[in-house]
Amino acid sequence: MTALLRSWIASANTAETDFPLNNLPYGAFRTGSGDLHAGVAIGDRILDVSALEAAGKLDLPAGTFRSGVWNDFMALGADTWAAFRAFLTENLSEGAAGQSDLQGFLVPMAGTRLEMPFSVSEYTDFYAGRHHAFNVGSLFRDPANALPPNWLHIPIGYNGRASSVVVSGTEVTRPNGQLKAPDMEMPVLAPSRRFDLELEMGAIVGQPSDRPVSVQQADDMIFGYVLLNDWSARDIQAWEYQPLGPFQSKATATSISPWIVTKAALETFRTSTPVREKELLPYLREPGPMLYDIELEVGLAPAGKDETVISRTNYNEMYYSAAQQLAHHTSSGCPMRVGDLLGSGTISGPEKENRGSLLELSWGGREPLTLDTGETRTFLEDGDTLTLRGHAQGDGYRIGFGACSGKLLPARAV
Amino acid sequence: MTALLRSWIASANTAETDFPLNNLPYGAFRTGSGDLHAGVAIGDRILDVSALEAAGKLDLPAGTFRSGVWNDFMALGADTWAAFRAFLTENLSEGAAGQSDLQGFLVPMAGTRLEMPFSVSEYTDFYAGRHHAFNVGSLFRDPANALPPNWLHIPIGYNGRASSVVVSGTEVTRPNGQLKAPDMEMPVLAPSRRFDLELEMGAIVGQPSDRPVSVQQADDMIFGYVLLNDWSARDIQAWEYQPLGPFQSKATATSISPWIVTKAALETFRTSTPVREKELLPYLREPGPMLYDIELEVGLAPAGKDETVISRTNYNEMYYSAAQQLAHHTSSGCPMRVGDLLGSGTISGPEKENRGSLLELSWGGREPLTLDTGETRTFLEDGDTLTLRGHAQGDGYRIGFGACSGKLLPARAV
Repeated sequence: MTALLRSWIASANTAETDFPLNNLPYGAFRTGSGDLHAGVAIGDRILDVSALEAAGKLDLPAGTFRSGVWNDFMALGADTWAAFRAFLTENLSEGAAGQSDLQGFLVPMAGTRLEMPFSVSEYTDFYAGRHHAFNVGSLFRDPANALPPNWLHIPIGYNGRASSVVVSGTEVTRPNGQLKAPDMEMPVLAPSRRFDLELEMGAIVGQPSDRPVSVQQADDMIFGYVLLNDWSARDIQAWEYQPLGPFQSKATATSISPWIVTKAALETFRTSTPVREKELLPYLREPGPMLYDIELEVGLAPAGKDETVISRTNYNEMYYSAAQQLAHHTSSGCPMRVGDLLGSGTISGPEKENRGSLLELSWGGREPLTLDTGETRTFLEDGDTLTLRGHAQGDGYRIGFGACSGKLLPARAV
Repeated sequence: MTALLRSWIASANTAETDFPLNNLPYGAFRTGSGDLHAGVAIGDRILDVSALEAAGKLDLPAGTFRSGVWNDFMALGADTWAAFRAFLTENLSEGAAGQSDLQGFLVPMAGTRLEMPFSVSEYTDFYAGRHHAFNVGSLFRDPANALPPNWLHIPIGYNGRASSVVVSGTEVTRPNGQLKAPDMEMPVLAPSRRFDLELEMGAIVGQPSDRPVSVQQADDMIFGYVLLNDWSARDIQAWEYQPLGPFQSKATATSISPWIVTKAALETFRTSTPVREKELLPYLREPGPMLYDIELEVGLAPAGKDETVISRTNYNEMYYSAAQQLAHHTSSGCPMRVGDLLGSGTISGPEKENRGSLLELSWGGREPLTLDTGETRTFLEDGDTLTLRGHAQGDGYRIGFGACSGKLLPARAV
């Protein structure tokens, strides 16, 4: 494991910052009512790469950062990803000759508004956490047959709605939807009463494909990762999802953290998926470790109250990696594009405190959770703010993601 | 019902052309290796509107047709849609003063290659045909309980894959996928053996929304319609679809016809959805007729052989209109964008010859279909060309869609 790399930006040289020189995650920001700029987080500063480009200081095709988002950069491919990271690392290092060149392009992060770091082409969500699938199957089916028969063979996924992906800080309005409990004669259109979070990681596809790819090729296509909260209306889902899967129950919003943490920054934290319970078909076998050791937590703060951490888990709990998911995604010949986003599926761990959704934490609403403030929760209440946090822990430094938070607003009048 | 409107382009003045002056559908074309141009079909000609714009002859914001596709035009809104259609109708009418102005911008359609007329933002597919849902439910469940419990209350839909939408004429490669028959111990990765078509209409969303909309507002947001073939791998679907719906079984390709037939062109062919078997919730009730009387057929031509028409049906068989589907799609607050595509669901009619998929026509593969050439089919064979056709029949004219065809190529080596 590498040590902290020291920068001439002092705030980057601490064990606590999410953004040491080892990280260099990519985001998009606005200062006041200005244009959207692409930026790199370093300590408590953002390096304004759109401004660097406009000043002619980058060795990249003209206009790469004109849009303020990272899609055009991703499209340039892995050699450019590596060269640009090397340029940043070199010039932001302690004692770098480039310090005077870059100094004028640093912006205090505190004075900016972070926006979507990339334009989402399409969004796919998976169901690839063993503990989550087991818990949900136990709740809705039977603990003895909790996993669907295909689950140990296929990284189960469904297409989500890209237009609903929002950046951390965006408020989320409780959805209305068709609800029908088994004892009701007719459905009603009403606010969801079982609105939930799902703690996930998102993988961002940085290179396109027009034919099936191997797991190694898939890993090579991935540009980076974000935290992802797939807000879910359990009661809408229960009534709508047969036979074609979740639709409006998952279409209200999906929040992501504002910084794309690159695959390169996570390289030393690679870890293998768990032992296979059934042998996978060859097209899904990993040639090396493609998961990551990333510590995750969820905080819930009722309106005007302190936050309680309601879950702690780790990305290494997944049964399938993003690379396996992406390889499966292309198996039919499905074309992938730069900017596609893959949600990992809810990341629950083995213990109760490791569960990544309120559905699991409150066991279907039957076991309310008591917060530090003394209040209880089965599902989310209006005014609640949910915050996901995550980092890979290095030796004296951390590769952090920044927060992924969202406040729940009351439903619209029906 | 209006009569044929006569144009100074003689080929548009017949009862047989798909493209009389009454139609004026919107497409995109290339001549040789030239740039993509937006065009309007009229008889056997295309009016090159990208060239008209470049020549300064259109009263539209600069660059509307620069991309060659219709998204930027759609974004301008319904008043612009109406004004542009009025401009075209006036100047292409027999005796129009504008004839000399436009003459130089007509291109023979036969010398062009038609491409995707719009950039698909996201693709949603529905399951809104009563006969299709009944047939599929009877095949896989039980004729006594063929419809899922939610079916008469919700226009059931799922998110599809926009990157897989292709224009008519694009060849489709038979997918590989995980297959597992109930008697197999383990799945295999192999070419789909039950690859099928689905005869559908596609509705194109021409205006965005960021909150729930009414059925009337939804109808107002729709720009036009295309024919749509949602190629489907039934065997991949059977193994993968529980619990989150179809994924790779529907991701290989979805073909659309090359011309967007506008809502305006179809106005006189509006018709009501069938009598409700159960009362709909108010947010799904139609304030007026929002389906269309469009005759549809499917032709299947084995490699090097003549085509057999294997199905004839009508869009008026749908239980839910595109406007109802779109209203439901927004019910959770799901944002819609210009260029979203909504597949109607398979359009089967009451009789065997009205069925819109081979799954239904061959009753799950148990009753092979005999083609005019003497060959039989349960599902598609390599080399088969599928062609959808559709038109609304006016008094001495037709509003046609052009063909939606695709040839099936053998699967890639696994």
